[in-house]
Amino acid sequence: MNPEVLTAVAAVRSRLDPVRRAGRTIGLVPTMGALHAGHGELISQARREVDCVVVSVFVNAPQFDRPDDYRSYLINLQEDVAFCAARGADLVFAPPLEEMYPQPQRTFVEVADLSDHLCGRFRPGHFRAVATVVAKLFGIVAPDRAYFGEKDAQQLAVIETMVTELNFPLRVVPVPIVREADGLALSSRNRRLRPEERRAAPVLYRALQSAQERIRSGCHSAPEALRPARQLLDACPLARVEYLEVVDAATMAPVARIAGPLRIAAAVWFGATRLIDNLYLAP
Amino acid sequence: MNPEVLTAVAAVRSRLDPVRRAGRTIGLVPTMGALHAGHGELISQARREVDCVVVSVFVNAPQFDRPDDYRSYLINLQEDVAFCAARGADLVFAPPLEEMYPQPQRTFVEVADLSDHLCGRFRPGHFRAVATVVAKLFGIVAPDRAYFGEKDAQQLAVIETMVTELNFPLRVVPVPIVREADGLALSSRNRRLRPEERRAAPVLYRALQSAQERIRSGCHSAPEALRPARQLLDACPLARVEYLEVVDAATMAPVARIAGPLRIAAAVWFGATRLIDNLYLAP
Repeated sequence: MNPEVLTAVAAVRSRLDPVRRAGRTIGLVPTMGALHAGHGELISQARREVDCVVVSVFVNAPQFDRPDDYRSYLINLQEDVAFCAARGADLVFAPPLEEMYPQPQRTFVEVADLSDHLCGRFRPGHFRAVATVVAKLFGIVAPDRAYFGEKDAQQLAVIETMVTELNFPLRVVPVPIVREADGLALSSRNRRLRPEERRAAPVLYRALQSAQERIRSGCHSAPEALRPARQLLDACPLARVEYLEVVDAATMAPVARIAGPLRIAAAVWFGATRLIDNLYLAP
Repeated sequence: MNPEVLTAVAAVRSRLDPVRRAGRTIGLVPTMGALHAGHGELISQARREVDCVVVSVFVNAPQFDRPDDYRSYLINLQEDVAFCAARGADLVFAPPLEEMYPQPQRTFVEVADLSDHLCGRFRPGHFRAVATVVAKLFGIVAPDRAYFGEKDAQQLAVIETMVTELNFPLRVVPVPIVREADGLALSSRNRRLRPEERRAAPVLYRALQSAQERIRSGCHSAPEALRPARQLLDACPLARVEYLEVVDAATMAPVARIAGPLRIAAAVWFGATRLIDNLYLAP
């Protein structure tokens, strides 16, 4: 059965109020469309855990720091709705830009510190826009659970902090990265890679793995652990590293010594396409 | 019957979940304690409009720009609970500071523009801290309605904007100012006035009224309308004006020409005590 598609905030509320009143749980999967198997995992996990699965499809203009990145973020709503249907979603919320921002937005949610490192350094205002739109979606859908992919680890950390510190009455559920057979993490941006870039792109995952192996075999220095990863990436003529760091998994701040729960995280350009990936390291 | 007093976020949620599940409406009256008849009006109006009335009593340290102001904001919880009982509140939420801020807060809600004028100019960070704690209270109580006094007109405008723009699923209910017989707006800070300051303080309301009269009798220039008000205040040796402005009622930005819904707003010091007051002017 096809999920309902709603475009208005008020319609979502009228649709979900009786669901909530009936004591049924609601799960939200926030997406920017262009759905792939990574999103599929988010929807499937929600389907297993809650009564009513809502997928939002909204390309949040303010979070794009580069206009060309926003413009190339084309989505096909019909395809995305069919994808949601196949994964068992109940409702797709696909608002136009003016439904989410009927007037110039003056209210922002800012998560300090966490937003300053990694992607935050290279994408000013990005996480403020992400936190703000997610807070809005939480206000509109009022979910019991919200599902976020671990690929966007810094986004996940920002949202988790926001939910805890603004006391949003919901649980954030992190969902593991889904990868292609060759290790490339699924991303809507992968489809923009030219064939030779696509062939080169798995070097990003291999680099992270090489750092992980060094740490597992006892290396306690982050720069040491990252050296072979950096060499792998530097040896690939199509790859240009934006950052490659070992960070504290909670604060996303780069660390020098290996201790505690960490992530090895990188952003690498392949031609005009910027890819991110990370590996979690349990303590 | 005495209202229940809860101090833990989790306890409030367990208490209110079944209320909500039963389809009963919840009203929140956020206060910093030291309750007076102004708060009484907020509670009474909530009592008339919702099934379950929650009064929060929490002195939000981060919103105080002056440590001496925070220190003198003493509250007597027992008195406040008795006050809530008399007005028919069902629940008092009185968390300790560490329940609201168990770790250093990194997440903030910022309402741009609106927070920059009037009190915002003189109390840096104040409205950010207010918006943030109110967002937290909304997350904890998840009210259908929240009641705010018009005396803190800028705070009201900041909260209304936040609720609209972050899509909080609730209605903000503004409640008119309650005044003493001599016109002084009720405030927890009035009790700090020395006797001679208390006798002088109604000049603030008289000044606002004089501006209102000039506007009603056809004056279209804000500086013109404010001139006699300013003279009244300047003639009072105990009063020191921080600001006196005609502002747009929605944006709180000072205006020069009289048009649209406005507020005449002032902050005036009497000795060590800062009082604010305002009058709404329908268009």
